[in-house]
Amino acid sequence: MRIGILTGGGDCPGLNAVIRALVRKGEGIHGHEHIGYRHGWRGVMEGESLRLTIESTRGLLHRGGTILGTSRTNPYTSDDGARRARSILERDDIGALVAIGGEDTLGVAARFSADGIAVVGVPKTIDNDLSATDFTFGFHTAVQVATDAIDRLHTTAESHDRVMVVEVMGRHAGWIATYAGIAGGADVVLVPEEPFDIEEVCRHITHRHHDGAGFSIVVVAEGAVPVEGTMAVVSGSLDQFGHARLGGIGNVVREEIERRTGFETRVTILGHVLRGGTPTAFDRVIATRFGIEAIDAVHERDFGTMVALRGTDIVRVPLTDAVRVLKTVDDALFSVTQVFAG
Amino acid sequence: MRIGILTGGGDCPGLNAVIRALVRKGEGIHGHEHIGYRHGWRGVMEGESLRLTIESTRGLLHRGGTILGTSRTNPYTSDDGARRARSILERDDIGALVAIGGEDTLGVAARFSADGIAVVGVPKTIDNDLSATDFTFGFHTAVQVATDAIDRLHTTAESHDRVMVVEVMGRHAGWIATYAGIAGGADVVLVPEEPFDIEEVCRHITHRHHDGAGFSIVVVAEGAVPVEGTMAVVSGSLDQFGHARLGGIGNVVREEIERRTGFETRVTILGHVLRGGTPTAFDRVIATRFGIEAIDAVHERDFGTMVALRGTDIVRVPLTDAVRVLKTVDDALFSVTQVFAG
Amino acid sequence: MRIGILTGGGDCPGLNAVIRALVRKGEGIHGHEHIGYRHGWRGVMEGESLRLTIESTRGLLHRGGTILGTSRTNPYTSDDGARRARSILERDDIGALVAIGGEDTLGVAARFSADGIAVVGVPKTIDNDLSATDFTFGFHTAVQVATDAIDRLHTTAESHDRVMVVEVMGRHAGWIATYAGIAGGADVVLVPEEPFDIEEVCRHITHRHHDGAGFSIVVVAEGAVPVEGTMAVVSGSLDQFGHARLGGIGNVVREEIERRTGFETRVTILGHVLRGGTPTAFDRVIATRFGIEAIDAVHERDFGTMVALRGTDIVRVPLTDAVRVLKTVDDALFSVTQVFAG
Amino acid sequence: MRIGILTGGGDCPGLNAVIRALVRKGEGIHGHEHIGYRHGWRGVMEGESLRLTIESTRGLLHRGGTILGTSRTNPYTSDDGARRARSILERDDIGALVAIGGEDTLGVAARFSADGIAVVGVPKTIDNDLSATDFTFGFHTAVQVATDAIDRLHTTAESHDRVMVVEVMGRHAGWIATYAGIAGGADVVLVPEEPFDIEEVCRHITHRHHDGAGFSIVVVAEGAVPVEGTMAVVSGSLDQFGHARLGGIGNVVREEIERRTGFETRVTILGHVLRGGTPTAFDRVIATRFGIEAIDAVHERDFGTMVALRGTDIVRVPLTDAVRVLKTVDDALFSVTQVFAG
Repeated sequence: MRIGILTGGGDCPGLNAVIRALVRKGEGIHGHEHIGYRHGWRGVMEGESLRLTIESTRGLLHRGGTILGTSRTNPYTSDDGARRARSILERDDIGALVAIGGEDTLGVAARFSADGIAVVGVPKTIDNDLSATDFTFGFHTAVQVATDAIDRLHTTAESHDRVMVVEVMGRHAGWIATYAGIAGGADVVLVPEEPFDIEEVCRHITHRHHDGAGFSIVVVAEGAVPVEGTMAVVSGSLDQFGHARLGGIGNVVREEIERRTGFETRVTILGHVLRGGTPTAFDRVIATRFGIEAIDAVHERDFGTMVALRGTDIVRVPLTDAVRVLKTVDDALFSVTQVFAG
Repeated sequence: MRIGILTGGGDCPGLNAVIRALVRKGEGIHGHEHIGYRHGWRGVMEGESLRLTIESTRGLLHRGGTILGTSRTNPYTSDDGARRARSILERDDIGALVAIGGEDTLGVAARFSADGIAVVGVPKTIDNDLSATDFTFGFHTAVQVATDAIDRLHTTAESHDRVMVVEVMGRHAGWIATYAGIAGGADVVLVPEEPFDIEEVCRHITHRHHDGAGFSIVVVAEGAVPVEGTMAVVSGSLDQFGHARLGGIGNVVREEIERRTGFETRVTILGHVLRGGTPTAFDRVIATRFGIEAIDAVHERDFGTMVALRGTDIVRVPLTDAVRVLKTVDDALFSVTQVFAG
Repeated sequence: MRIGILTGGGDCPGLNAVIRALVRKGEGIHGHEHIGYRHGWRGVMEGESLRLTIESTRGLLHRGGTILGTSRTNPYTSDDGARRARSILERDDIGALVAIGGEDTLGVAARFSADGIAVVGVPKTIDNDLSATDFTFGFHTAVQVATDAIDRLHTTAESHDRVMVVEVMGRHAGWIATYAGIAGGADVVLVPEEPFDIEEVCRHITHRHHDGAGFSIVVVAEGAVPVEGTMAVVSGSLDQFGHARLGGIGNVVREEIERRTGFETRVTILGHVLRGGTPTAFDRVIATRFGIEAIDAVHERDFGTMVALRGTDIVRVPLTDAVRVLKTVDDALFSVTQVFAG
Repeated sequence: MRIGILTGGGDCPGLNAVIRALVRKGEGIHGHEHIGYRHGWRGVMEGESLRLTIESTRGLLHRGGTILGTSRTNPYTSDDGARRARSILERDDIGALVAIGGEDTLGVAARFSADGIAVVGVPKTIDNDLSATDFTFGFHTAVQVATDAIDRLHTTAESHDRVMVVEVMGRHAGWIATYAGIAGGADVVLVPEEPFDIEEVCRHITHRHHDGAGFSIVVVAEGAVPVEGTMAVVSGSLDQFGHARLGGIGNVVREEIERRTGFETRVTILGHVLRGGTPTAFDRVIATRFGIEAIDAVHERDFGTMVALRGTDIVRVPLTDAVRVLKTVDDALFSVTQVFAG
């Protein structure tokens, strides 16, 4: 069989490891052929592809990013896209497609699957917000990079009696902020799931400083928003939705804390550092196992499925599960951050 | 209540994070007092302890090792040990004991629990061989350190057309070797669960070199043994159980490969590097959550239990579960290493 | 002799390693006593100090920050400060003072020295802008942390055809940006020494993208400024000195590039991550050697001197050398960045 | 001009960065062509080469190893080798050769240079034992990797009151052991330059344990040898030159310490982990500057020279300087390790 592979959405450490595993088992054990489409669904629509072989995918295990490139193109919203994609798949004699991506990419995959295309999905989200799987690759790497940064900030915060604000990714869910906050020993963790009251944050920081701690670490997810009305007027740097006008919520929180508490406050915006670079060992193992399970599903013609991690097992679930509901930080976990905020 | 805390067995990244979490929630939220016994059960028998407070456990989250020290002392095998331990616990007015350790330490805890002492267990094993929990803290750190080493060996192996042998921990179970082997892209993984045939290993390596790969990476767990009769005679460096006489199985495997294949072969013995140093972010989160759940169990007088990770949840299981059966590498996982061995 | 020790100015990885080395050789070999003043010169003025012993300085080698705390207080500019400092030094029976700090801290040290106080200096600057020494501790750590971040950004930039802007420290000199730019393979490096023309930067980026590179990495020192008149009007986010109003020059450069080129552009602001955390091995060696040489200078009553690195040797130079002239990036080094910008 | 490039001797982090810099400036600025010979001088003798272009050397900056491969082949000792090499260079129309390597590789280069071939050298030695340059690339990386390992061993040594032995590279010079020993806070450092007395080592360790330190870290260079007669008889595991029979000097030292002191002693053999993997930022900068200076020397027809680091400058020295005299650890530096051994 000739199998198409694509990576869509934001990139993530581990994508290359999935591609390598798919090809290694697909070609080496099952005897299939593989074609990679470039830039996600766009490559399928436009027929941009390259041959993938065991030889050409060597040395990919530890490399960040994706050799296929990625995009957010959706064939169903672009003119005639779905039809063009189908005709390319026919032209290339593709027996099955493995789509690696997040909610959007897998949503498209689910629609193609419903329309009769043989598809298997591999879930990917740096933000850990897909409900069908315990974890995906990339998330642990992002948490590790953020935690390393917080570790470094701790010593300088202590030496100067300063407040350090760290902005991490997480537009709709605060998993990275929560995990890195717990792992880094943050004093305050702000997440999209729960609007924050800047006054309360400042009271807590002031309290710590009076108690002799002298410094505080604040981790803020990029999607965190203040309780309505509490900051917008004061700062003038938030738009009508409470999002920062320039330079992100981290800058705004820094400015507010410094102005309200009088403590020197500094900000670090980690940005895309979290989604680049070599995956952690754990993410490489998940990615590799996902790739192997996905190609086995293809080989067994178990289409319309998606691989997922449940506990320590790799399982298959319906592809439609991927897009059901956003997985937000659960209360049991978030409450851990509260134990250390005091 | 006054709560005793001890750490037993081999040390592990994350022990200090558990201690910190226990005290932070125990003192800060529940209002208990805490005493740490030094060197595991030995400190309980000999009454060697120190006061633990939020203040004295600050800054421990990222520190490897254990501030309490550890030992393998077993009160039940030492003269009058159990009685002496009980009398110390009474003297110190200990209402409950949190024992952090592996099979042996928790086995003692289970016996004390059966004898009426209020105990809660926290599982610890660098080797990941406790069946009652999906993972414990420390394991991911060990895998990461081993994987970093394998990454480095890859480039030098390639440049010189060499075979690189890496010996990692794992006396009875090959979890570290398997995870690090998958994450590092090893060509051969040798584990205690499955005796290896050195001839087959050498055939595989020779095959790779003839195929143009030019180099090979062999990961060997310290407890790996050859198929009976296949190596002992030849090497003279194995004792009657197939264990290496000097310098570990890694040295022996290195020598055998070099002699049989003619390829330059080098060895790295990682040893205790795997169990020291700062825990990964993931291990810090598990350790912190274990500490919090254990102190909650104490507070709710839910004794005779042990905390455990199931999927992404922290649960409580009977303390006796800890010592049931050695968890060895499962076939589904080990078969992943076979995909890349070829 | 009783010796006073202080750390002043911004903190820096390696300060604790200097303190440890001073005390280890001072107490262990020379038989002196040591007192640490808290928060730089402020502690000397206010008599805030603690006893330092071999015992109390154990385990400091790898710890970032400074256990003494630091400040930018200058006794000569604060009311009666110099007199108060002298009287505290007399009260504490201080035979000699070791001042660890940058231009300001050592400037004060030089004045006290001129006024007859026995002082030895240890140079410290994360920015590498002291002309009396080849390097100081802390700089290599900052460069390494920045380079690690750039490495991670490379893979994500490639996968998405994006421009990545990284802001690093360096208010008056662009050493960190230049070293990290070379080490990370940056395409554009902007430093305070040379005002940049945003149009030229954008032309270069556009040229790269048309040439097929698809992505670009821009490293910008926080003190980099545009050529007068080229950006201020357009962006409205620079003040009259060309400094960014909110969130730093990195945010402004990001916005300008995205608007002018049309390429998706993202920013990472590393901030204080660069000056916190454990020092690199090289910085630990410099810091340790500085500490040993400084305490030897004290022991030999060679006051008014400062230790320095020249090639691979540690030497002593007049304390007044420290404050002579700002060391800016030399042309030979900066020209290296130009080789790869094309 | 067409320029040949080769890498010889043991591999080293930074070789690829040199190659990239040579080609980037050679092709991009000077307009030359480049050919890489495979496996050091062997490739020149056998005419095995590949075209090197800016395009084909992209992404090499951070990659360990060498894309050209390496060997220890010496044309002057192999039959007719020098003549064959010359005829290949003529056949390939090579105007100049850049040889990157250590004492042996550069020794051959010096002979070819004396015989009229246009050669420029780039010094490489993981061991830092070339006297013509302050440092070469690769050394700092090796020291960093060794220091990271020692950091990890510290916490586990402390927790268990153990002695930890770490064997590092260094056959003839103890630079890595000395630097990593200082940076990692080792208690004993054993180097080839000074035969060690195992009795004295054990006395020191015992003294520490009685003093309450409880643990010790011993760093031993692979070329360290005991004072004649002190260990050979006892251990039976050293050959007539005092070298370990199986598994290296680290294993032997471990065994001797455990037997003589009675303390649990563990060993880590880092081996080739030290010479593989991505170079530190500092090594990437040195390697890049070396490459640029070497290609400039070629362009200016300044043959028979070698590039070198002096302080912070890159200079040119006669190629014959490279092979003059082994640079061993200087006393001023080694004495630093003695301060902390007590």
